[in-house]
Amino acid sequence: MIRIGIIGCGRIGQVHANSLQGIENASLVAVADASSEAAHACARRFGVTVRDVSDVLSAKDIDAVVIATSTATHFDMIHGAASARKAIFCEKPIDLSSDRVRLCIKAIEEAGVPFMTAFNQRFDPHFGALRQGVVDGEIGDVETISITSRDPAPPPLSYVKGSGGLFRDMMIHDLDMARFILGEEPTTVYAAGSNLIDPAIREAGDVDTAAVILTTGSGRICQITNSRRTTYGYDKRLEVHGSKGMLRVSNVLENLVESASSTGFKTPRAQPFFLERFGAAYLAEMKHFVDAISSGKKPKPDAQDGLRAQLIADAATRSWQESRPIQINA
Amino acid sequence: MIRIGIIGCGRIGQVHANSLQGIENASLVAVADASSEAAHACARRFGVTVRDVSDVLSAKDIDAVVIATSTATHFDMIHGAASARKAIFCEKPIDLSSDRVRLCIKAIEEAGVPFMTAFNQRFDPHFGALRQGVVDGEIGDVETISITSRDPAPPPLSYVKGSGGLFRDMMIHDLDMARFILGEEPTTVYAAGSNLIDPAIREAGDVDTAAVILTTGSGRICQITNSRRTTYGYDKRLEVHGSKGMLRVSNVLENLVESASSTGFKTPRAQPFFLERFGAAYLAEMKHFVDAISSGKKPKPDAQDGLRAQLIADAATRSWQESRPIQINA
Amino acid sequence: MIRIGIIGCGRIGQVHANSLQGIENASLVAVADASSEAAHACARRFGVTVRDVSDVLSAKDIDAVVIATSTATHFDMIHGAASARKAIFCEKPIDLSSDRVRLCIKAIEEAGVPFMTAFNQRFDPHFGALRQGVVDGEIGDVETISITSRDPAPPPLSYVKGSGGLFRDMMIHDLDMARFILGEEPTTVYAAGSNLIDPAIREAGDVDTAAVILTTGSGRICQITNSRRTTYGYDKRLEVHGSKGMLRVSNVLENLVESASSTGFKTPRAQPFFLERFGAAYLAEMKHFVDAISSGKKPKPDAQDGLRAQLIADAATRSWQESRPIQINA
Amino acid sequence: MIRIGIIGCGRIGQVHANSLQGIENASLVAVADASSEAAHACARRFGVTVRDVSDVLSAKDIDAVVIATSTATHFDMIHGAASARKAIFCEKPIDLSSDRVRLCIKAIEEAGVPFMTAFNQRFDPHFGALRQGVVDGEIGDVETISITSRDPAPPPLSYVKGSGGLFRDMMIHDLDMARFILGEEPTTVYAAGSNLIDPAIREAGDVDTAAVILTTGSGRICQITNSRRTTYGYDKRLEVHGSKGMLRVSNVLENLVESASSTGFKTPRAQPFFLERFGAAYLAEMKHFVDAISSGKKPKPDAQDGLRAQLIADAATRSWQESRPIQINA
Repeated sequence: MIRIGIIGCGRIGQVHANSLQGIENASLVAVADASSEAAHACARRFGVTVRDVSDVLSAKDIDAVVIATSTATHFDMIHGAASARKAIFCEKPIDLSSDRVRLCIKAIEEAGVPFMTAFNQRFDPHFGALRQGVVDGEIGDVETISITSRDPAPPPLSYVKGSGGLFRDMMIHDLDMARFILGEEPTTVYAAGSNLIDPAIREAGDVDTAAVILTTGSGRICQITNSRRTTYGYDKRLEVHGSKGMLRVSNVLENLVESASSTGFKTPRAQPFFLERFGAAYLAEMKHFVDAISSGKKPKPDAQDGLRAQLIADAATRSWQESRPIQINA
Repeated sequence: MIRIGIIGCGRIGQVHANSLQGIENASLVAVADASSEAAHACARRFGVTVRDVSDVLSAKDIDAVVIATSTATHFDMIHGAASARKAIFCEKPIDLSSDRVRLCIKAIEEAGVPFMTAFNQRFDPHFGALRQGVVDGEIGDVETISITSRDPAPPPLSYVKGSGGLFRDMMIHDLDMARFILGEEPTTVYAAGSNLIDPAIREAGDVDTAAVILTTGSGRICQITNSRRTTYGYDKRLEVHGSKGMLRVSNVLENLVESASSTGFKTPRAQPFFLERFGAAYLAEMKHFVDAISSGKKPKPDAQDGLRAQLIADAATRSWQESRPIQINA
Repeated sequence: MIRIGIIGCGRIGQVHANSLQGIENASLVAVADASSEAAHACARRFGVTVRDVSDVLSAKDIDAVVIATSTATHFDMIHGAASARKAIFCEKPIDLSSDRVRLCIKAIEEAGVPFMTAFNQRFDPHFGALRQGVVDGEIGDVETISITSRDPAPPPLSYVKGSGGLFRDMMIHDLDMARFILGEEPTTVYAAGSNLIDPAIREAGDVDTAAVILTTGSGRICQITNSRRTTYGYDKRLEVHGSKGMLRVSNVLENLVESASSTGFKTPRAQPFFLERFGAAYLAEMKHFVDAISSGKKPKPDAQDGLRAQLIADAATRSWQESRPIQINA
Repeated sequence: MIRIGIIGCGRIGQVHANSLQGIENASLVAVADASSEAAHACARRFGVTVRDVSDVLSAKDIDAVVIATSTATHFDMIHGAASARKAIFCEKPIDLSSDRVRLCIKAIEEAGVPFMTAFNQRFDPHFGALRQGVVDGEIGDVETISITSRDPAPPPLSYVKGSGGLFRDMMIHDLDMARFILGEEPTTVYAAGSNLIDPAIREAGDVDTAAVILTTGSGRICQITNSRRTTYGYDKRLEVHGSKGMLRVSNVLENLVESASSTGFKTPRAQPFFLERFGAAYLAEMKHFVDAISSGKKPKPDAQDGLRAQLIADAATRSWQESRPIQINA
């Protein structure tokens, strides 16, 4: 039984708490949050106790911590948890500065604690089955990938300002999926970005629409398109081409009812957003974390995966800013 | 080069004339119609001469006749063409009376002329590919069939009155397809019929909505559903199940544009009606007729196929009238 | 908080126990089973106590019982639970004899206890959304329904022999869905049945392939096709046509990965069987039961729904046996 | 009646000859080809006479010429036809050198003759309906476009060497479609190219796999992906996103037969290649040309469209060669 403390009781912290309820070899022991109110609401909902962050980090009866606080606090949380020898599950991104991410990795490695970066989309059953098909050689050698991510609406402007920008905040999931599927590290990135939805996003120094081309050493090519706007639900698709064929995952719709009328045939919208679309993925990633710790294996994706996705996001940001392709530092 | 005369210059006669333009080893020589106006309009459109029906039937420079007149006249046309030793392509149904169909068959056989009944749906590329899959054993032994035919709107009441009823007029195509796919003759039919669309159809002694179950000697089952109403175009589907799997053909849509908006995902309506849906089938059936004559083979479906479909339609009509399953006479 | 005891710890009893874990206003108190081993295994899995059936029925700390035992025992269980004034959730069918079902209904009504028949498919989110569309008038007046149910394989022969036959065991779900969607009671049924899969099923007096036509007083028509064989997963579809259009639910696939190769485009099989396909429905029906009791409302579908579906199944069975349409007793 | 001469009797010249047979207000008068054999074979097939190229260009009984010869000869053909005051339908590309294209435009404008560049994909009924939806405002303001073109196999190496490269030969169709849908001229292009299929293509100085990002002045973004390999037929898709929604066209399959078996659900491959996929488009573009001349309107796409697509292709080629985004010259 892995005993777990959650630090950060916001939306995503509660998602993880809920996941833990469905995992037999894990138990949620305590939650912590800078807001006492949030912590107590969460504790009541899941029938656990509230503790201070420092108490969670140092508690003898806690084996692993889930870090679901705001990005700026991750650095300290990770260092605290690492020195207390806790296994660590950390929300992405680890930190907006890749230098600081490297410091986190150093601390983790020195402490020798398991660490998992929460790229939950790897655990989606649909994307997982697609990736298994690639690994099994169903499509031969990978040649090109196309990833589409379109959010239903931009996040609040306050969030945009602290997010590190679309490439680090939103596209980072796609960059991780690209690495997950490509079978090779991307070496060059070119990014185009636009403001087509809200001028305030431009004023905040960010884009709301973007396209990226990644290339690898052997010439594999990945295209990604992102937008902060759809009218038809959360648009999340992945298509991979290889020498023998193609695999793709399309949108998950709200339900399977098809209708026909004088205007044609209709199906419902896609799932509203990531919480609905990736419900099963959130559960599966937490199961993976718990199972890895239980069996003494390293969880995956790890801190290096977190760092590498971030380095690509950094390069994409710079490519957009400087209007030229950027080499990605390994 | 097969030299052809068309008798009957209505909508379907013109379809066949048009088909003949695209067939290299056939030439349309003349057209005939009880209406001189219709005949001349058709002749002008296709650049051929108008002749009297009797002249077409007896002409030395005509090898084959296409009978596209009203059903009541088929009997005389067939007898005339048979005695003049013409190959015959005849619109379905051969006659509303199965006894008179048998007399036509006798005349055809005595004359030894090729005869084809125009069940064009057998020549649809989609249904044809499905049937080929069945013949090739892709789904093992046939077990059940489901056929859906829904017209966009009822025909004019005057047409209904002379049509022989929905089972003989509309469902007969599905009954022929059932025979085409089943691989066995149906032995029993049960028919349910309703008036849900237009009370005038009931007053004319017919139904506008119907369902039928056919069973064969070995226990294969075919379900057919017919309606004289859809709002979304011509609904024409066929699904066949066997011991190893399933084959089906869904609707052909007006085009392949899919749209997404705040109300979900949309595709266009199905093709408006049979002329659009079966455009390729009309051409292919005429090609088959011409090729069969050219090569001295018997065209198929033949007069026996016409008779057998009609006997099932007769039995279905009686089943509906008497509210009981009816054995089909072989 | 509704306190619940489950009687019957087989597969379906465990499904309900699992559902209760996810329902906040319910708690599973105890389980019972004729097999002590089964009861204790189930109790361990869900962390509850084992009691005797009679103890569950009479317990003061239990508000409602879930009857998930074999059909033959339902009669006594229902009478026991009714006299103990428990709310009752009973698996379908209530009893294979409609006379005995009527006696159960009498007992339930005299006791004045809530009773729910477990037609779980009504609670499937896809079928539920379809039905809501019908109720909301999206397709106008209902005209025809087509229901397809194909199991991946026949049940064990021992099960077949005690099942009451395909119409009462398998098609009864479709008959309930037909009533749920039709908006009118069926008045006539015609059934065709065949043995195409396993001759042993015929020897056991049952069919493995069947088709049914239901008609209502106003002329609405419902077609149902059942088979005990598919190779591509559990085939469960429903399509309803109305004066304004059509609504349908197709199969739920194992995942959304589409592949393309030299043989064409491919998607995975349908969900393996009903436990996977109706996972969400099992949870939703139990929630409905608990919520209904909590709020003092009558749960639905009720015992009358159980009876009526059974009367149609009885009539279908007789129609198949006597090869004629049968009037359904109200 | 527009009297037409075709110069170039290869595959595409024959496609146009065939189209002309189905156009009522046009007649094919003569064909010409450097190969006398090819010319006579074509003339026999379509029942017309063979003439010398110069005779076709100067003939009094010819109103318009279709130039379907190899690209290198277009320049002279266009100048010859323009000075003879013929309407001109010219295969793409007009010339591999944009300077020479400009000279052709000068000659056309001075002669005042109608000129059409054969971007047939604009006339595909599916893409046409999609574009109409964009023009009608169905998706609001265009934001992003994604175009996928994957050929079933690379062309012969000899063809590759004279083709001007993938961007000018293959992607030029997509670049024209991008212009057709974007509603704005692209101003910047970034191209990535790889050799993943055949090293001989690399040795010939070309790529077989490519991705491009186009951006417009207002920030609209278009992604294009090209490959010279698919195993599942000709892959040709277009998706456009706007402020209100999305429109897309997927692949046209060989037929609509869907099958299901123990390996899941299957549909056939996409149409083999462009001749099948764009059969209707070839007819429609020729109809448009004939109708435009008949009614005195300018056909569209015109020589400027040909030039602009080529300038983007030139810039894409340079972007790939120099690994940097390139401004497109207007």
